[in-house]
Amino acid sequence: MTSDTISVDLGDRAYDIIVGTDLLSKAASHIAPFIKSHPVIIVTDETVASLHLTTLHGSLSAAGITTETIVLRAGESTKEFSGLEFLISAILDLAPERSSTLIALGGGVIGDITGFAASVILRGIDFIQIPTTLLSQVDSSVGGKTGINTRHGKNLVGSFYQPRLVLADTDMLDTLPRRELLAGYAEVVKYGLLGYPDFFTWLEANGTAIVAGDDNARRHAVMISCDAKAKIVAGDERELGQRALLNLGHTFAHTLEAETGFGSLLLHGEAVSIGMVMAFDLSLRLGLCPAEDAARVKRHFAAIGLPMGLDAVAGQNWTRNALINHMRLDKKVRDGRITFILARGIGDAFIADDVPLKDVEALLDNAIAA
Amino acid sequence: MTSDTISVDLGDRAYDIIVGTDLLSKAASHIAPFIKSHPVIIVTDETVASLHLTTLHGSLSAAGITTETIVLRAGESTKEFSGLEFLISAILDLAPERSSTLIALGGGVIGDITGFAASVILRGIDFIQIPTTLLSQVDSSVGGKTGINTRHGKNLVGSFYQPRLVLADTDMLDTLPRRELLAGYAEVVKYGLLGYPDFFTWLEANGTAIVAGDDNARRHAVMISCDAKAKIVAGDERELGQRALLNLGHTFAHTLEAETGFGSLLLHGEAVSIGMVMAFDLSLRLGLCPAEDAARVKRHFAAIGLPMGLDAVAGQNWTRNALINHMRLDKKVRDGRITFILARGIGDAFIADDVPLKDVEALLDNAIAA
Repeated sequence: MTSDTISVDLGDRAYDIIVGTDLLSKAASHIAPFIKSHPVIIVTDETVASLHLTTLHGSLSAAGITTETIVLRAGESTKEFSGLEFLISAILDLAPERSSTLIALGGGVIGDITGFAASVILRGIDFIQIPTTLLSQVDSSVGGKTGINTRHGKNLVGSFYQPRLVLADTDMLDTLPRRELLAGYAEVVKYGLLGYPDFFTWLEANGTAIVAGDDNARRHAVMISCDAKAKIVAGDERELGQRALLNLGHTFAHTLEAETGFGSLLLHGEAVSIGMVMAFDLSLRLGLCPAEDAARVKRHFAAIGLPMGLDAVAGQNWTRNALINHMRLDKKVRDGRITFILARGIGDAFIADDVPLKDVEALLDNAIAA
Repeated sequence: MTSDTISVDLGDRAYDIIVGTDLLSKAASHIAPFIKSHPVIIVTDETVASLHLTTLHGSLSAAGITTETIVLRAGESTKEFSGLEFLISAILDLAPERSSTLIALGGGVIGDITGFAASVILRGIDFIQIPTTLLSQVDSSVGGKTGINTRHGKNLVGSFYQPRLVLADTDMLDTLPRRELLAGYAEVVKYGLLGYPDFFTWLEANGTAIVAGDDNARRHAVMISCDAKAKIVAGDERELGQRALLNLGHTFAHTLEAETGFGSLLLHGEAVSIGMVMAFDLSLRLGLCPAEDAARVKRHFAAIGLPMGLDAVAGQNWTRNALINHMRLDKKVRDGRITFILARGIGDAFIADDVPLKDVEALLDNAIAA
């Protein structure tokens, strides 16, 4: 077992993220200090349960920690109002006390809905996250954003609620489908692009090893990503300022996801990948970013196999107006100008709230024609 | 317009409660400084809408504050998961922004569900409370407890979320049914009994005037009650200690409400009234409270017309075991002992976590036989 610990410095809501290998089988030793009453309630989904639940149960049971387990259906549709009500009812059936602890064992959906449930049951009980995907290890498990989707959009209902502990076991990435691994890698590379140019350089050298499953490379990448996000979140927990930099690529990504139905046609990380390429192209078009940096981004994405353009979605009929309309609904358009996260170069992102709509339209026209 | 302002001292969640007459018709002057974007979204119920909505609309409209209004069904059943989903969807239909403000115009149900919705929409938007019942003016609008009921119990799902402002207009009590006025008075007198003996003495002299509708007496009573609760809440926002004193009478009350179905058979305030008489009787039985104090409580309750015993619910078949079982479910019973708020006298309540079950059983036997 090799591990690093990252402290998320949020005052009385501070918590640690432990990143390492072989953590799940020894989960009890990390979790035990946080358990105030029994049983602990594990929330997971069918896919993750079949892969990892026995290991977690084994560790907790050997340490004398009794558990109850709630297994949800896998997939984004679990993260809706009906799913939240089902989960909360299932937890209340177990008669939790204020001292009870939930453990979220799964990817972003399980983490988001379990964190939200924890924040409102008895007006707030403890929860611990064991993220099982690369995306959730480097993104959704850091920063305390919980939420559900409604027909109005993604994550429009939720809370800021911090876990007590996060265990990010990179061994669990062995069982992750390659497509999901790449989607998670897009969020890893995002940290390099938004503020850590040395990390991007390191990824250029080590990205292939990460995707291929190299232990040390994966652990380092997850650790640096979590540390980067933890620092940004600690400075701006409720996203009033710099936390918005984490949305690099996300204005484009959300509109692409909306057009493709937020489903398996285009995963969130894939949309972010395309969105980051577009954000660098837009920065280049506006004369903000050197051409060499935009080209370097594309070279690395191509080397890893990340999706880079609208043609990544086979058979989708993109139109400029539909994409712009989603940005309008997303409240990003005001008086003919749009708010974007742009970049002055690799590792130098900033919030631009006055991007001319016509430049975005021209960019989309090019992207659709490509 | 005569008004007092109480500051609820909760750091960056601090807010003011304005208590007075003729506040609703001048609501805009108080509310305007808190409005960051338009329209403001008013949430109310059918009963309150027919009485007070025109006045509020008139004030806001005259001040150029645009509004949208969501009218819910009146009654406790609105405060369930389906009601929460309905309300959140109706609010999201209006495309709120992070700068949006909700106004809760109504009693405890409207305040609780609107506050909960505000706490989770876009992970938290502002809300302002205009409580229209005596109970909500002195109790649920102070302290930031929001929530909904499930089949497992009342308020098991919710959040701690503070409003930006509370406007408690005692003129609105003119339209309140007498039964609800008395139920609210029970929570007023609670503050005297738990920690403010001089206020209890004042209520002995002025309680009849409050119920009869005397402006000055009502305003003073609401102001002192809010101030008392604000001080307790400021010292213990998340109820880890002294805030529990506010539960004087509530262990009995919850079990009586559970037995009567949490409905109109026995209102919450009525249950609290009976529960406080029982708490003083239990304190007397345990040799903690002078007989004169317990008798004084009963004299005042009788003078006002508050319910005092189990016979207040006509036709109910009470059994000791059913009542004790509800206390067990409420987690108040442990190793043959029960946690109660007891009193060493009028104005001197304390948390007793070791009351012998047999004394409670004997008390209930007497109450059922009476």
